[in-house]
Order: sequence, then structure tokens, then C-alpha cells
Amino acid sequence: MAVFTPQQFKDSTKARGPMKVYMNGQRIGDLWDHPVTRTVLEANLASYEWANSPEGEPVLTTTSPLIGEKIHRYTHVCRSIEDLEAKALAGTWVAERLGTCIYRCVGLDACHSLAATTWEMDRKEGTAYHPRFIEYLKYLQKNDLSAAGALTEPRGDRKQRSSDWKDPFLSLKLVEKKADGIVVRGSKINISGAYGGHEVIVLPQSAKRAGEEDYALAFAVPADTEGLIYICQYNPLSAEREQCQSLDELGNPRFGQRETSMLVFDNVFVPWDRVFLCGEVDYAGKMVARFAQTHRMTCGGTCKVGFMNQIIGAAKLIQEMKGMENAPHINDQLIEMVTLRETVRACGLAAAFKGQEIPPGSGVYMPNDMYGNIAKLNVAPAFWRVMALAGDIAGGLPVTLPSIQDLRNPETADYVQEFLSFGSEAPTEAIMKVTKLIQNWTAGLHGVGTWHGAGPMAAQKIMLSRMADFEHDKEIVRRTLNLDQT
Amino acid sequence: MAVFTPQQFKDSTKARGPMKVYMNGQRIGDLWDHPVTRTVLEANLASYEWANSPEGEPVLTTTSPLIGEKIHRYTHVCRSIEDLEAKALAGTWVAERLGTCIYRCVGLDACHSLAATTWEMDRKEGTAYHPRFIEYLKYLQKNDLSAAGALTEPRGDRKQRSSDWKDPFLSLKLVEKKADGIVVRGSKINISGAYGGHEVIVLPQSAKRAGEEDYALAFAVPADTEGLIYICQYNPLSAEREQCQSLDELGNPRFGQRETSMLVFDNVFVPWDRVFLCGEVDYAGKMVARFAQTHRMTCGGTCKVGFMNQIIGAAKLIQEMKGMENAPHINDQLIEMVTLRETVRACGLAAAFKGQEIPPGSGVYMPNDMYGNIAKLNVAPAFWRVMALAGDIAGGLPVTLPSIQDLRNPETADYVQEFLSFGSEAPTEAIMKVTKLIQNWTAGLHGVGTWHGAGPMAAQKIMLSRMADFEHDKEIVRRTLNLDQT
Amino acid sequence: MAVFTPQQFKDSTKARGPMKVYMNGQRIGDLWDHPVTRTVLEANLASYEWANSPEGEPVLTTTSPLIGEKIHRYTHVCRSIEDLEAKALAGTWVAERLGTCIYRCVGLDACHSLAATTWEMDRKEGTAYHPRFIEYLKYLQKNDLSAAGALTEPRGDRKQRSSDWKDPFLSLKLVEKKADGIVVRGSKINISGAYGGHEVIVLPQSAKRAGEEDYALAFAVPADTEGLIYICQYNPLSAEREQCQSLDELGNPRFGQRETSMLVFDNVFVPWDRVFLCGEVDYAGKMVARFAQTHRMTCGGTCKVGFMNQIIGAAKLIQEMKGMENAPHINDQLIEMVTLRETVRACGLAAAFKGQEIPPGSGVYMPNDMYGNIAKLNVAPAFWRVMALAGDIAGGLPVTLPSIQDLRNPETADYVQEFLSFGSEAPTEAIMKVTKLIQNWTAGLHGVGTWHGAGPMAAQKIMLSRMADFEHDKEIVRRTLNLDQT
Amino acid sequence: MAVFTPQQFKDSTKARGPMKVYMNGQRIGDLWDHPVTRTVLEANLASYEWANSPEGEPVLTTTSPLIGEKIHRYTHVCRSIEDLEAKALAGTWVAERLGTCIYRCVGLDACHSLAATTWEMDRKEGTAYHPRFIEYLKYLQKNDLSAAGALTEPRGDRKQRSSDWKDPFLSLKLVEKKADGIVVRGSKINISGAYGGHEVIVLPQSAKRAGEEDYALAFAVPADTEGLIYICQYNPLSAEREQCQSLDELGNPRFGQRETSMLVFDNVFVPWDRVFLCGEVDYAGKMVARFAQTHRMTCGGTCKVGFMNQIIGAAKLIQEMKGMENAPHINDQLIEMVTLRETVRACGLAAAFKGQEIPPGSGVYMPNDMYGNIAKLNVAPAFWRVMALAGDIAGGLPVTLPSIQDLRNPETADYVQEFLSFGSEAPTEAIMKVTKLIQNWTAGLHGVGTWHGAGPMAAQKIMLSRMADFEHDKEIVRRTLNLDQT
Repeated sequence: MAVFTPQQFKDSTKARGPMKVYMNGQRIGDLWDHPVTRTVLEANLASYEWANSPEGEPVLTTTSPLIGEKIHRYTHVCRSIEDLEAKALAGTWVAERLGTCIYRCVGLDACHSLAATTWEMDRKEGTAYHPRFIEYLKYLQKNDLSAAGALTEPRGDRKQRSSDWKDPFLSLKLVEKKADGIVVRGSKINISGAYGGHEVIVLPQSAKRAGEEDYALAFAVPADTEGLIYICQYNPLSAEREQCQSLDELGNPRFGQRETSMLVFDNVFVPWDRVFLCGEVDYAGKMVARFAQTHRMTCGGTCKVGFMNQIIGAAKLIQEMKGMENAPHINDQLIEMVTLRETVRACGLAAAFKGQEIPPGSGVYMPNDMYGNIAKLNVAPAFWRVMALAGDIAGGLPVTLPSIQDLRNPETADYVQEFLSFGSEAPTEAIMKVTKLIQNWTAGLHGVGTWHGAGPMAAQKIMLSRMADFEHDKEIVRRTLNLDQT
Repeated sequence: MAVFTPQQFKDSTKARGPMKVYMNGQRIGDLWDHPVTRTVLEANLASYEWANSPEGEPVLTTTSPLIGEKIHRYTHVCRSIEDLEAKALAGTWVAERLGTCIYRCVGLDACHSLAATTWEMDRKEGTAYHPRFIEYLKYLQKNDLSAAGALTEPRGDRKQRSSDWKDPFLSLKLVEKKADGIVVRGSKINISGAYGGHEVIVLPQSAKRAGEEDYALAFAVPADTEGLIYICQYNPLSAEREQCQSLDELGNPRFGQRETSMLVFDNVFVPWDRVFLCGEVDYAGKMVARFAQTHRMTCGGTCKVGFMNQIIGAAKLIQEMKGMENAPHINDQLIEMVTLRETVRACGLAAAFKGQEIPPGSGVYMPNDMYGNIAKLNVAPAFWRVMALAGDIAGGLPVTLPSIQDLRNPETADYVQEFLSFGSEAPTEAIMKVTKLIQNWTAGLHGVGTWHGAGPMAAQKIMLSRMADFEHDKEIVRRTLNLDQT
Repeated sequence: MAVFTPQQFKDSTKARGPMKVYMNGQRIGDLWDHPVTRTVLEANLASYEWANSPEGEPVLTTTSPLIGEKIHRYTHVCRSIEDLEAKALAGTWVAERLGTCIYRCVGLDACHSLAATTWEMDRKEGTAYHPRFIEYLKYLQKNDLSAAGALTEPRGDRKQRSSDWKDPFLSLKLVEKKADGIVVRGSKINISGAYGGHEVIVLPQSAKRAGEEDYALAFAVPADTEGLIYICQYNPLSAEREQCQSLDELGNPRFGQRETSMLVFDNVFVPWDRVFLCGEVDYAGKMVARFAQTHRMTCGGTCKVGFMNQIIGAAKLIQEMKGMENAPHINDQLIEMVTLRETVRACGLAAAFKGQEIPPGSGVYMPNDMYGNIAKLNVAPAFWRVMALAGDIAGGLPVTLPSIQDLRNPETADYVQEFLSFGSEAPTEAIMKVTKLIQNWTAGLHGVGTWHGAGPMAAQKIMLSRMADFEHDKEIVRRTLNLDQT
Repeated sequence: MAVFTPQQFKDSTKARGPMKVYMNGQRIGDLWDHPVTRTVLEANLASYEWANSPEGEPVLTTTSPLIGEKIHRYTHVCRSIEDLEAKALAGTWVAERLGTCIYRCVGLDACHSLAATTWEMDRKEGTAYHPRFIEYLKYLQKNDLSAAGALTEPRGDRKQRSSDWKDPFLSLKLVEKKADGIVVRGSKINISGAYGGHEVIVLPQSAKRAGEEDYALAFAVPADTEGLIYICQYNPLSAEREQCQSLDELGNPRFGQRETSMLVFDNVFVPWDRVFLCGEVDYAGKMVARFAQTHRMTCGGTCKVGFMNQIIGAAKLIQEMKGMENAPHINDQLIEMVTLRETVRACGLAAAFKGQEIPPGSGVYMPNDMYGNIAKLNVAPAFWRVMALAGDIAGGLPVTLPSIQDLRNPETADYVQEFLSFGSEAPTEAIMKVTKLIQNWTAGLHGVGTWHGAGPMAAQKIMLSRMADFEHDKEIVRRTLNLDQT
């Protein structure tokens, strides 16, 4: 069986070679020992724990037609509508438990794109990428590996083409083609959790055209490959976690916020059996588009639903702790939150149910592109609104809350105990913790993150302007008015 | 075969007995001869035409498991998820062609509720309504009858219970129970198109409680039954149609606006074989709720999608006629319109795909209630926004447009021809007609209508507050924070 | 005293020469006798009635510094902040009483632009337009004339410059310059109420550049000038008014909807003393911009406030008639309506209070341009929202209402009386009339009209991008971060 | 002259007696030495620096009619419309420079309420509070004291009256009335910056009724009064500031976030000459209402305008650094941000310009209550939207940014330098700092804070429902329809 135990995950990450991971001006030693990097490992670890639990096993495992064994769903490329729905449900299930990123999802969505596009390339161009990728995918499945995905690049002046940039490495670039592999240099930014898993799967950032062959690259490297440097994000939530006395002071004790890093590829060598695109410019755009097609359902209609469950649950708890169950304006706000959540969930489901085999014959299923984009276009403003409403329901406290340590300091304990009680039956400590969780959402990183997961809104609008069938709509009007072709 | 031809529909409506239909202070004679009432008949007629057309036949027909024949989809009660999706698609397909109400849909949705609820009553209460209703449904199918549905009632002071009203007939009320049937008095208001079909199916307006037995009524009557009086709506669009010289002056030449009337039941007799609820107060609310469950998908996620196709198509045509294809602010508005439309379409699809057999064992399939309500909650503000955007794109002309008659009057023809041309290749007449269609939507009855189809938003919010699983969400929070039951 | 009596207004309009006014394919004779054109005359007439009433006199009259007499405020060019506030208040006061356009306002706003711009031209270019315009303004004041304003033009393909259009007359164009005046040809479209007053004041549609001298035109003509043809709008509300039996069937019995027409200038001669711009291309844009500066406060912050008063009042009445005073969701909707109304009122007031003398030294006061634009940008979506909310509060009835004639037809009177009573103390006739007024707003022309009064939103956004002081904001950031010039 | 120098402020705060200030489980010693509490002192200090600067002196000083000397505007109670406008401008001016709370404003707004209400009480009740308060105000002015204001209280179960709470001290309560003063116990929560100034002015949280005399309290105490304990907020931004190596790592280096604390009054003694309300229940509500009337303009229309200046400026800088000046979707977003900012500024101005002497004769001027409430109702959703838009414009980096220390660490410096440059001329350090400022706004505490400053939205809606003149609106409708009183 290819579903690994939590211990296997721990052992495998500890067996990795030395990695260059930097945060706040310093190199980090054991990633399990640093309070911030540890959260990424914990989130990945949980995906193994849950796959081995009675509750999570039906959600998080399936059988691989490639290796004929039970595998973790986060290594499975969808082969049917049912798979797509199961993938959507798993995304929500995991997200509501983590309250942060499931770091294996971008890598999985990248695999969908690679499976489909290498298949198509081989058929149309006579390349031999597909079998190579399938071998790689089987390797992921057999070893139940956590793979991150990496697309976004720094880029230079947006008014210029890449070829006009002074620094050609602002997109990831081929440096040398060798007999046994390729050497690449450049950077991927905003990459979720890459240092906490086993593999990093790299796709291009965008479509490429003739002359940009050196930028048309897709490949996979082990997370501990030589020349790969991780420079981590650092922000207030990092600092808070670094200096807290106990994890229960924090808004998401075990899993924390979404942790990202900038990946620097300083002349990294990639052997040919891990290269899945190298110079075929016509397929770079397809790789990105198919990743996005898969990932927009994920970001738009699944993980944010799980996050909203946390926010709505906390808002409801606070309402009850304050004794305001019957306040109509709060109930109205809760219903607005539910409406927003269910709207994006519906879009995600529609994307799954109207999913398609892409390209036909490939055996790879992807969510319906229209509804995936629609899910994303809805979720970003919806998420801000849900955060805002939670912030209103919870009163000023999410931003004025003392530390739980003040509840433990004998000089202040009685005061905090008394004056943050709401006169409620609930323990003051519970009130403070639920408020802290709301702080974590409403005064944290997730608002901005929601805009950018699966690409900015502007990208989804461009997709929509390509997919919208205005000719159909115009024809309907002509028919109604008995007009000739106008 | 039980799909009737257009001619059969015409003949059958002409064969109806004398009907009391009033509009604007006068009784109308032949409904086919009056320009306003005729639009309802035309819309129904079209449903027969299209079911007999190569394009429409796969959309609008299916096979009845009850009578074993091909029937019109608008007489078919869904028996599977596939049926629900087909029903949703048919709703959009018809709506975009009509640009107004398909008057057979409320009756069909009422049949879903009756099929499910009579089945449940018989099982739980030992009544014998279900076989009676199934006979009635077979009668509808065999004769391909158009049936309207009627729920909304005038009601008295909303702060009082019905029993406190001075006038007990502000809800439809049982007057007498006789050996061969019942006599009822009261009124149903806001009823779409009832006089243009064969049958009127009546459900209660709302849940009833003990003491309100006389209001717990469901039944069907022929549209020409004695004592049934129709008092039609009358508004600016009615007047315009009445006095136009040729139909092509109008924004929706053949099918017009949604036509409704107030149905007065002045001691109408209903034989027992057409009575499906009479005094069983516990089931009145279920009948309404199941109607709403079916109808909210219809209103929220299907017909409005078709309407928006017309509006978006017309806005796009006007953009092109003005030579403004590249104006970014208009393209942005069009994408916003598409986003709104596809969001409600996605909700409708999710409602279909997550539909259920209700009650289990009944064989009746209904859309998922959560997503149906979500569809409706989205569509009402979305529809106003789409109207508003179309009004912005089309400039001032939708409300300042001269008549096409001014294009035909030799004294003004050249001026109108020249000055409403936009300097475009498109004929001025086409420009004017497309603008007129936009007027029909943006300065017509549909905005308000969208709020109220399938009940007001407040009703959907109440449903949501019942369906929202806050306990799940609270549990998620407790788990994240390691809290005990709080 | 230069405030005319209602009788004087009537007499003066009857004394006008023959006018070519067309509607729905026919020429109209006496405009007082036609039910539709009469509404414009009634609205103008009311402005005289009210100026002579105790209630309206302080609002609608002031003293002219030009002629030293009491004049109608609608002939007064603002000379102070107090004037601007008084003008704003008058706009709301009149609008809430008319429930439609006060047709004298565009002409008055055009006078503001002409007063300022002719003053500047004379100073900078040595022209002699200003004294000529002041004479004309004194003529308006002494004779208390109603003047319409006309700017919008058909225009040709928007991707082209005017000089590339096949038909050069799609903007109003100089045909000939003569010793005693000029001859012009072209059209102005969407013009509110022009045929119902005494004068038409014409400004350019947009800025002009070198080579477009023939389009840089401003002048005034009597409404009955030769060669001026009016082709009126025609729509459902026109038809309804034409064929109603008594005015009280209508949603706005006396004043109706906003009536516009297309003005065709078929080689109209304008004597030099009525020409205020002729070829000075650099000032065409200023004339438009200053008109807009004045008019955006009017449209954005004053008349729509009055309209919303009607809508909010009617929604409140319906709520009470239904006995729903305590329904929290309706009270919430009413508060939202009030919030929207007071927001635009505040913007209008800010525009008045931060008004300026433009150009300095001219004595002409204009509203603050930033807040005028902001008022307009707020009012358009706000107005749609207020309409939508009224439509929700009033239920389905605004679009399903029978005619009052059905209340008068003995065959239906009792039914209508009973079943549209809401069980309320209020007379059914009053309920129907209030509902009809809501229909007039929510299913009428005003939504689209609100977008376009004072130009489309896109124009206001362009203005804003010019006025927004991003340099200030950037400097604030640099200071906070101790950055050098970045 | 009564405007103190920065040195005088520093000296005076250092001269304060020992204070009990707790944060994160520990007591803080010298508040100037702790990185977090210091920010409050710095913000207050800046108000003295700027009042002594050529740029700030006209904005931040005026002449007191009470002491006849030049004073700091933040000790001046408005006595005219001009004062109200000057106060609004000062609020924006200071806020855009601080990028956080000006901690003197709540105290000043409390003084407005006390000046008006003590005046009224004395006249109506024969009390002698007003001269006592005026003496206190003169003391503030002469010594240029920074005064915080404190209203919000923990409160118990919201479904109960205070008298039913198990713990009567969940609102601040009189413990004992003595010859020389009173003793109070309880807490004020969410109090901005109180420990950083000289005085704390206390008003009731809400209206009181007979039986709640012990809760009807207003008074002032020195910040270092005995028995007053401050328990500070603690959150991720606190932690980040505590452990940063240099302030320029932070998003608002000098002034930080808004710092609040919970004030515990553990049997605090207040001498009579500092007591301004004690038991007069009828005036408790007025004190709150008048504070809110003053403070809603401040929160709604002034300080948030300054904050938005920072956010808009940073978004514009990032746009330019990326070379995206011409991207229409970003320009559209910037214009939306400007529209939102100017809308709330207009509401603030309208509130000032339509301000009134309250109560008449008192000499105290307050902003117009309608427009102050409208400002607040607009600003809260507007602020969230502005934050969200900035987050979209700035890309993912605001939440994925490494520390500036990574730019200084030689092992990573070159990578960060290269890959966060956007290929821009701007230094990478500047790019990172501007991004950090955006992080500070979009992933910080201000969103939630905006809801709650000047009370929650629900409170403003309640005010609006009292102020909205529905009778006027109904009358307008009756007049239009010639209805009798309905």
C-alpha cells in the first residue's frame, strides 16, 4: 500500500540532504525545530495522519490505476467526474481542518497539467515526455511524496518583453543543455510550503513565443537538490510564533498561516528524466492554462470554503458567547456569510460536474474552465466580505485582545478573567481563543492571499472574455427581433 | 405520441368554454384576438412548436414512465439527476428564445411538489391522494396540457394570524365540503399566464397550523372553470402593445412582457378527483416548501440565465454598432455581466447535480435546496446589475428612443435615418430595434419580477438559516483550538 | 418684478410660432393638447406656480445683480457659495414635487458655463462674447424664460475622429458664416423637454482640436426657430398616457416621465448676438467641462435626492399599509435607502460648500469638481439600488397591478376592492396608486436615465483620474518610510 | 503660549508617577523604552512637533477663547462651523502623517460632549457641572495635555439588563460617594493609547435609566492615578516590533499600529472637581450620543481619509515600480479607491458645514449628525474595499515578502536584490518597504478597527432610523398622487 504513515513522513523529511532555508536574515537548521518552518511540516504531516484515520481515509485515499495500489488522493491525477468531485470535497475537508494551505495541492494540480500536456505533445510533436512524466508520477505515488508546485516569477518591467529585460533571469531560464540534463537559473516567488515536502514541480509562469525557448521549461527536482535556495517570508505572524511561550497563544496553534518562500535556482541541474518541457514554446501556455484550469476550482471553490467554515463557526460562537443569538442584524450577517460560502461551493461543484477529459483521449480530467474561473472571481471579494463581517460580529476585540499570558499572570489574571468574560458561561480562555482565531483570519494574511491564489482576477477576466460566447447571445437577440445578420 | 402539434394547441384553447378575463376596465372576448392576452398564448404555442422542431425536440421532449409515451418535458416530473439537469437546460433554452416567462413552469413545479407530498401523506396518514394525483398527471401528459400554478395570496394584516383578519377570504378558503367535491372562495394574485393554458394548479400560500384547516387546500381546475375570474395586470407595456401599429415597434414583438393576472375564485366547485389536499394542515407547509425547492432552481438558475443571454447579446451588438469594440470599460462591463450570469448558472447546475429523491422512495427528484436558494439569492441582485450595466453600455437611447414609426414617416425618416445611425454599417432600423429590446429589459417589468419569482429574498434567507450547519462550523473551530465543548 | 405668473407662462408658450414636433410617426399640433408633450409644459408651469407660492418663493426666487430685480432662481447664475447651496436645495425641492425632470436646469447650467467661459475668452483672446452673453442672460431673466440646454450628439464611429466620418453632420456643424449670423446643421439627441420652453441653449458635445473649428459652436435659439425639428421619444409610458381614460390611472399623473426629443437643426440660422462660440477650438472643451462641473452636482446630488424621497416615501407607505412596520428586514432596507440618499446629498452639499469662483475674477461660482463627480459616481448605482429595494419591499404588485379602471368596472370592482386591500385601513385605491407610483420608478425610465444625466460614469472616472492627486499620496508614503524620491 | 514643545511633552510624560501597564504577561517599566508602548508616545509627541512646525502650525493651533492664548487644536472645543472644518482637516492631516491613530482625538471628542451636556444639565437640573468642566478644559489647554477618552465596556449577557448581571462591574460602577470625591470600579476596553498621555476622560458606555444611577458616570483622571491598571493588546504586530533588529523593517516604523489597552479601575478615587456626571441617568445617553455625533465625523470622514491616502499612494508607487502605469484594470482600481475616499471625505465635510450649536446657546458646535453617521456607514465597507484593492494591485508580495534582513544577509542579499527588483529603476529596498507598508494595512489591524471606531454599524443604523424623516417622504408621495392622509 502506498499511503504512508505519519512516521514515514517524518523519517523521510529528516532523511533529506542539507537545505539552504533562510528567514529574517538567518539560515535555519532543522526545519522541524524552527517554530515557523515547522508549521509547513505539520500541515503535510496531518495529510498523512488523516489518510490513516477512519474519518479521513475515504476522503483522502483512492486506488491508482497506474500502480494498482491504494494511494493518497494528493498524488492522484483525476480520471473521471467522480474524481473531480472527490478532489473538491477533499480540498474543503482538509482546508477546514488545517485553517491554512494544504501544501500538496499546487503540486498535484501541476501534475494534472503535465499529464495532459505531455500526452498532447508526444502525439503532436513526436516527443517522449509523457512516459517520462508517468514514471515520475508513479514514483510520487509509490513513495507518497509531498510535492509543491512553482509557477510565479519575479519578472521585469511589465511593459517590456522578457528579451528586453536587462536581467534575463527575472524569469527562470535555461543556462545549459547537457548530455545528462539541463542547468537552470532564476527564481520562483510566492511559493507555498515548498521546503516542507519532498519534491518541487516547476512549470512556466506564462505562455512563451518563438525566441523564448530558453524560458519554456517544466521539470521536477527534489526539495533538497543542490543550488536550490529558499528565502522565506517574514511578517508579524512569523515573529509572534517565534516568540510565543506556548502555541495556544496563537490563532492557529499547530498549522499557523500560509508559509511561502522565494525559490532561487542558482544553476540547478535537472536530469533529463525529470524534464517535461524544454524549449517547446507552443506548449508553455497550455501548461499554464491547464494548471490554472485545475487550480482555479481548487482555490475558488474548495479550500476557501473550508476556511470560511472556520470563520463562520467562530463568528457564531462569539455571537452565542455574548448572548446575542437573537440579534437580527448579526443573524443577517451570518446568513450573508453562508450565502457567499455556498455560492463559491456551488461554482466549485459545477466545475467538477461539468469537468472534461482534456485533451480528449488523454484520460486526464479537468474541471470545467468557465465555472472554475467563475468560482475564483466570486471567492476573492467574497472572502474579504466574510472576513469583514466576522470582524464586525466579533466587535473590537479581535484587534484589541490581550495575550493569554495576561490571563496567566497573577497580577492581571483576575481582571482579564472578569472583564473579558462577557458574563458568559463559557470560560474566558475559550472566548479569548476564539477571538484570537478570528484575529488570525481578519487581521492576517489570507485576504491578500485570496486575490492571488490561482492568479489575479485580471487573469480570470481575460479567460472569461475568451470563453464567453457572445455570438450565441447576439444570435438570440437577432432571432427575437427578426433581424438579419447585423 | 403525447407531444401535441401547434395546431392541436390552438384548437384546444379555442375549444375552451367562455372565460371571464378583464383588463383595464373591460372584459376581453377572444384571447387570441387581444394583443396583450395573445402574447401568453403565443408563448405557450411556441413551446409546442419547438417541441416539434429538430432543434428543440431533444431539449423539450422525453419519455414518460407513467404513460410509456414521448411527452413534453413541461409535463414530466423529474425522476433522476439527469432529469433535473435536462429541466434546467430546457428552462434556459426556452427563456432565451421567449425573452419572457414560460408559463408552463410554475404548474410543472407544483406537480413536483404534489407528487412528492401526496406520496408522503398517503404513507403517513393513510390518505389516498397520490393515486388521484398520478391520474391527473397522466391526464396532463396524455393531452400535453399547459398548466399554470397559483400560490401567492393577498393576505391581510401581516401582524395578525389569518383567523384574526376581518375578511377571512384574503387567503383562499374552503366554503363547503360536498359529496362530489369542494367549494372554495378567495384569490390568488401575481399569477403568471394562467388564462393562456388549459389548467390551473393551486397550492397553499404558506404553512398552516391547527385551526387553519380551511386554508390547507391543493387542487386543480380547468382554466375555464365556472366562477374563476381573471383580472389582468395593466401597465405601460400593455398600453404600448394595444396601440402599436405593427408588432415590430415593440421590444419583444411576439412574446411581450410577463403577463399576470389576479385569479378570483368566486365559490368555485372542485370535484374530489382534482383535490390533493383538504384540511391536512401539517402538509401545507411541505407543499409550499417543496414547490419552492423546485422553483428556486428554475427562477434562480435557469430562466434568468436565458434572459441575461438576451441582455448581454444586445449590449454586445450595440457596442459593435457604435464601433466601441475596444473600449476597455465596456469590455469590463460585459465580463461583469458574464460573471454574474455564469455564477447563477453554476448555482442552478449545482442544485441539479446535488438533487435528491424527496421523500426517499417517492421516485420524485428535486434540486438541492441549499443551492436552489443560493441561486435565487444571487440572481435577484445580479439581474438588476445586468440591467443596469446594459443601460450604461447602450447610452441614453434606451430611454430616449423615438418610435420606428418616425423612421417610416416621410417627414422625419431621413433625419432619424441619419442621426440614429452611429455612422455604422448596421441599418438604423436594426440599431433602433436592438435598443428597443434593451429598453424592454432595462425599463420594463423584469427587475421587480426577479425579486419575487419563487418568493422574496427574505424567504430564501429564512430557508438558509434553517439549512446552514453552524454546528459543523463551530466544531471545526473547537478542534482547531483544542477547546472543549463551548 | 421678473418672476412671471403661471398665466404669463401659458400665454407666452401659446404665443410661440409654429413648431415641428413629431411623435410616433405623427406631427403634434398644440403641445398643450397632446397628453405627452403637455407634461413638459406642466412641469415648467409648476416652476412658475411654485415661485409664486408662499412655500416656494424663498426657494425659487432671488435678486439679480444684473437687472436689480427679483428673478426666478432658474435664471440666476451663481455668484457665491450661498447661491450654490440654494441652487442645490432648489433642485431637490423641485424634483421631489415633480417626480421628473425640471426641464429648466440644463439650460441654467449651460448659462453658468457660458458666463465663465465667455469671460475668460474675452480676456485671453480679445473676443467680445461675454457682454453679448450677459445681454442674453438679462433677457432670460427679465422675461423669466425657460431655457433648455443641448449638448449630446449622435456622433459616428467612435474609433474615428469627426473628420473621418462619412457623414460630417453627426456632430452639429457650421454650414455658413454670414454677415448677420451663422447657419448650422446637425442634431442634438437625448434632449430633455426642449419643446416645452422658450429657448434652447446649445453647447459643443466635447473638446475640439485644430481642424475642428466648424464644430466649436455655442449659441441660443428660440424654441420655435425655423429649421428646428423635434422628434420625440416614444415608449410604453408614452402609450399608456396617450390612451388612459383619466390621469389618476398613472404613476405620476400630472408630470409624467422625463420627456426628451432629438433636435434636428436643418440649416438653422442664428444671429450673431446669440452666438457665444464660433471656431475657438481651445474653449469648446472648457465649455463642456464647466457645464459638467455645474451639472454633475445637479444630477448627482440634488434632483435624484428628490426622486429618492418619492421612492422611499412610497416604500414606507406600502410597508405600513401591509402592517409590516416591525419587519426588521424591511426596516433594514429602508435604512439602506436612506443611507444611499444621504450619501449623495452629502456629496452634493460638499460640492456646493467647496465651490469656487471659476475662473477667478469672473464672478461665476461653480461647485467643487471633485465632489460633483463623486456625487454622480455614487448616485447612479445608488439609484438602481434604491429602485431595486423599493421593488422588493412592495412585493410583486408593482409589476402585476391591474388598472384603477378595474376598480371602477362594476363587474370587477368588488373583487379588486377586497383582494388588493391587504386587509388595511387604507383605501384600496390609495394602495393601488402608491403601488403605481412605485411601478413608475422601478419599471420606468429613470434607471437608465440616471446613468446618463451629466454624462456616463466613464466620463466621471476620466475626470477623477485627472483630479486625483496621486503625487500627494505617494509623498505621504515616502515620508512614512523615510524613502528618498522613488 | 499654551502650545508645548516636544521636549515639554517628553518631560511631562517622564514626570508621571508609577503606572501599572501590562503586556503579554509582564509589567512594562519605562514606557519610552518598550518598543510597543513607545509608539503611542511617539504619536502623541509628533502632535507637539508638528504644532511647532511651520507646515503644521496653521493646521494644529488656534486661539482659545477660554484662556486667550494660542492652544493646540487637540485641546479646543469647536465654537463655529469654521472650527468644525478645521478640525476635520486636522484629522486627515495628522492621520496621513501618522498612519495610525492620533490618540488625542477621542478625548477631545469627549470634551465636546461634556461641554454641551454639562451646560444643558446645569440649566435644566440646577447642577453645577459646567463651570467645573470648563475649569478642567482650561487646565488641559494651559498645560497642552494629551487626553484619551474611554467609553466601551465589557458588558454582560446582552439579553439582560445590567441589573441582572451576576457581576455588576461589567460596566463601570460607583462604589462609594465620599465627601471629597467618588470611588469607581470596573473596566473600559478597546481604549486607544490611554497610557501614552496625561489624562483619561471617562464617559458612560450607553444610555441609562432609573435604577442605573450608579452607572451614570463621567469624570477625568490623570493617566497615572492610583488603582488604574492598563492591560495592553498583544498581537502579531506587537511581537514583530518587539523582536525586530531595526525599525525600518516595519510597515510603519515610527508610529506602528493602533495600540489599545483594557483599563481596569480597581476602586479608583476621583475628586469632585473632576466628576462631570454622577447619577443623572437622563444625561448619560446624551453624553454618549453627543460624543458619537462628534466622533463619527472624525472616524468616518477624517482620519480614514488620511489612512487611505497612504494606501492609495503605496498602490500607485507599486504600480509604477512594476512598470504598469498603463494597465487599465489597475487604473480603474485606483479610481475606485479615490472615489471611495472622496465619498467619505465629502460626507465628513458635509457634516462639518451643516454643523450646529448643540444645545443652542451652549457655544459648542457639533457636526451634523446625519452626515456624520453617513460618513461612518460609508467608511467601514469602503476601507475594507480599499485594503482589498491595494492587496490586488500589489500582487502576492504583501503576504510573501521576506524580511529586509534578508537583503542585508550576505548569503541572500544578491538574490533578494535581483529577484525582488521588478527590473525597476527603484531600489529593491524601496520596493520592499512600500510593500511592507501595504502589508501593514492589508494584513493588519485596521480593517476590523474601522468597523468599531465610533461604534458598530448597527448603532449608526439605529441613529439613522431615528433621524430619517419618513413623514416628509410620505407627504411628497401623497401630494404627487393627490391622496388624502393615508
